[in-house]
Amino acid sequence: MLDFRPVNLIIGMLLSTLSLGMLVAAAADLVVGNPDWQVFVVSAGVTMFVGVAMALTNRTSGTHISVRQAFVTTTFSWLAITLFASLPFMFCELELSFTDAFFEAMSGLTTTGSTVIVGLDHAPPGILLWRALLQWLGGIGIIVMALAILPMLRVGGMQLFRMESSDLSSEKALPRTAQIATAIGVIYLGLTVIWGGAYWTAGMTPFDAMAHAMTTIATGGFSTFDDSIGHFNSGLIDAIATLGMFVGSLPFVLYLKSIRGDYGALVRDTQVQWFATIVAVVVVCVTGWLWLHGGFDPVQAIRYAAFNIVSIITGTGYASTDYGLWGSFAIPVFFFIMFIGGCAGSTTCGIKVFRFQVLYASARSQIHHLLQPHGVFIPYYNRRPIPDEVITSVLSFFFVFGACFALLALGLGFLGLDFLTAVSSAATSISNVGPALGPIAGPSGTFQPLPDEAKWLLSWGMLLGRLELFTVLVLFTRSFWRG
Amino acid sequence: MLDFRPVNLIIGMLLSTLSLGMLVAAAADLVVGNPDWQVFVVSAGVTMFVGVAMALTNRTSGTHISVRQAFVTTTFSWLAITLFASLPFMFCELELSFTDAFFEAMSGLTTTGSTVIVGLDHAPPGILLWRALLQWLGGIGIIVMALAILPMLRVGGMQLFRMESSDLSSEKALPRTAQIATAIGVIYLGLTVIWGGAYWTAGMTPFDAMAHAMTTIATGGFSTFDDSIGHFNSGLIDAIATLGMFVGSLPFVLYLKSIRGDYGALVRDTQVQWFATIVAVVVVCVTGWLWLHGGFDPVQAIRYAAFNIVSIITGTGYASTDYGLWGSFAIPVFFFIMFIGGCAGSTTCGIKVFRFQVLYASARSQIHHLLQPHGVFIPYYNRRPIPDEVITSVLSFFFVFGACFALLALGLGFLGLDFLTAVSSAATSISNVGPALGPIAGPSGTFQPLPDEAKWLLSWGMLLGRLELFTVLVLFTRSFWRG
Repeated sequence: MLDFRPVNLIIGMLLSTLSLGMLVAAAADLVVGNPDWQVFVVSAGVTMFVGVAMALTNRTSGTHISVRQAFVTTTFSWLAITLFASLPFMFCELELSFTDAFFEAMSGLTTTGSTVIVGLDHAPPGILLWRALLQWLGGIGIIVMALAILPMLRVGGMQLFRMESSDLSSEKALPRTAQIATAIGVIYLGLTVIWGGAYWTAGMTPFDAMAHAMTTIATGGFSTFDDSIGHFNSGLIDAIATLGMFVGSLPFVLYLKSIRGDYGALVRDTQVQWFATIVAVVVVCVTGWLWLHGGFDPVQAIRYAAFNIVSIITGTGYASTDYGLWGSFAIPVFFFIMFIGGCAGSTTCGIKVFRFQVLYASARSQIHHLLQPHGVFIPYYNRRPIPDEVITSVLSFFFVFGACFALLALGLGFLGLDFLTAVSSAATSISNVGPALGPIAGPSGTFQPLPDEAKWLLSWGMLLGRLELFTVLVLFTRSFWRG
Repeated sequence: MLDFRPVNLIIGMLLSTLSLGMLVAAAADLVVGNPDWQVFVVSAGVTMFVGVAMALTNRTSGTHISVRQAFVTTTFSWLAITLFASLPFMFCELELSFTDAFFEAMSGLTTTGSTVIVGLDHAPPGILLWRALLQWLGGIGIIVMALAILPMLRVGGMQLFRMESSDLSSEKALPRTAQIATAIGVIYLGLTVIWGGAYWTAGMTPFDAMAHAMTTIATGGFSTFDDSIGHFNSGLIDAIATLGMFVGSLPFVLYLKSIRGDYGALVRDTQVQWFATIVAVVVVCVTGWLWLHGGFDPVQAIRYAAFNIVSIITGTGYASTDYGLWGSFAIPVFFFIMFIGGCAGSTTCGIKVFRFQVLYASARSQIHHLLQPHGVFIPYYNRRPIPDEVITSVLSFFFVFGACFALLALGLGFLGLDFLTAVSSAATSISNVGPALGPIAGPSGTFQPLPDEAKWLLSWGMLLGRLELFTVLVLFTRSFWRG
């Protein structure tokens, strides 16, 4: 039997942290005199009580945690936090159903940005702040996970990044990781503050600036307005957001390296180079399309293309206009870039750029191998040979990603969604992007009209994608619970 | 420099064979007195002249052919045959444009079954027979290629089937392969005759019976009527066709084994088991959907589901009704099963069942490996361990397949096609299925209305898919022409 004590201990600690976030949202509502503050306080009380109780009753002497315990902890803690995070949505003045509240909380914590809420413009500040906070906390949670947990679990080729972190110092593993995580947390906070200041300077209210800064750096995509960033209709704000989403999509550990004196770390990293190239190519193509076929002037074309492409490719999910109306080329572009995502070790989701690099390197060495059957061709990543194990991991990840996407889309089709809505909703959930495509759940719509079963499927897809599939799927094997 | 003599020799021989097929079509037109017979005779003359000239001027003493020559021969011969096969389409009474003629010829020879011809019901017999012949010749061409050439070239994991053929006898390689190929050709002919007889007995004219038998066993999908098999509106004919397409999708080498006394060969083969299971599961799901949501009675539901599902999953491309109207679940089902295809060593295309087995086995051993990092988990195929090289080949194939699909779909979107038409046309061409989805190129439409550029893209996709991607892509690398 699996020893659940360390699992419960960690979940308890995380829930206690979550409850503090609820108190922050409560404060926001209290300031404007909205009675919702009581909902947040009660939710915080319940969450804190359960969290502390779990932590206290499950104290263990050892600090060691097994691989199986790590898998269970990761998935279960994400589920538990989502469950408690959905409490305020149910009992606040929006009175969401349990399904909607769970969906919204999952979309927040996974930094997806899909929403079921219509009428954000008139929603009380507490709930708006709560949504931003969920994405912000989810974002840093993901970075820490990608740094400390996933490489250890060797999920989907993430073991590639085990060595990365060892570059930074050479002392014992655990204190080092904790140290790095803390430093990165500070950077994350710093970037958020900088972007908050920038938004404010560009004309947002302090509240909107803070809320958007949190969901920009977290590449989350929740906004405080139904029209998303489009509400402000400001080229400057679009530019700040575009840059912010890009910054949120780079490996945070490289910011740490840069700060510690290795100024070329970002520029030298091939993942960053690939990501920047992909973004540039797609933006140029769509800008050209909008200019030549869409009736945009060149400046407008580049502004709208850059903002919305970066938003979708990074899985943020803001929209500055309804790009669903950009014509026949734009729809498949927006569909396929949903799968890409940003760099590993950032707040983005999707397949991620390093996997495409491994896939490409592997296909290339395949082709050389076809021509010279007795030659040896080693694929490289960041100027280092990629271990065979990583290649198989990444390739399998790609297949499982495709299979999960297809099953989700089939399920949504079964529930009555039209083809475009079904496939793009499946893609947007498993890649944690935000909006789907089409008139219902596209950039100008919400997921509100979907049937409850579809919302559960999509919540499941968000979790699956966020935890890199295998972390969740492993729990569904017999050998996991037997061994 | 590459020695092109053996390449030209083989292409010359193949063109000479093709010209004989043209004479058969000429005979059909001569019998009914249609002046098109002259077009076929002239085309045959030209093709024969070029073929014989190429063969005679490129005789070489050696029989050895290098890996690079084999790659060039495979791709170039397919292109050359398509080019000459399109002659009759251009100069017959249909007077297709070069683009349309090339598309139709490529669709025939790759056993795809997409068509640009409207008005088949009134087309002369010569051209109808020519279409059927192209698919029939393409079908046996593919089987021989999958047996003799692709395993040698080790494309996309096809090296798995090198050992298979060695089970049959133990003498020298070349005469053995030729022997096996001849025996399989006889089986292919035999099955075609049997199905022709069955169609005839079920009420088709001898001409329609023969034409449909050729395109059934070849899983090609060209029909002699605009309404495809739906024209006959006969449950018996549907059943014969369903069984025939299934038979055409199994590895033909297993029929040979069965005839030689190993009666359990088909039943024991895990690829056949998987294929049968997948078909059964999809048919059951769609039957249930049609019964409960589509207003079909159970018997009708199973008849239409079985026929159309088998037609699309095997990449045949017949239609007995417009399944585009079967509602929200059917569209994604038909979309995703396009990618599956049948067994390796059959006439089908797509990703093929053995690759899904390898992908699944590899993902499974991945998951076990996550739980026990120091354990050794070997994926199996047909009760034999899969060599690492094959796993990487298959996984890379899957990635390159996905990438080519996405690029095709983006290209079609750029040319103005709507999302459903673009993605399903990309899928149907790269998987050699036949119809796309949607009102334009779906089961009740044709590819006629598409712009010329789109037809060229799709022709390219068909070739790429048919030759298992890498065979073609390898020609686009610098090292191929340098080395």
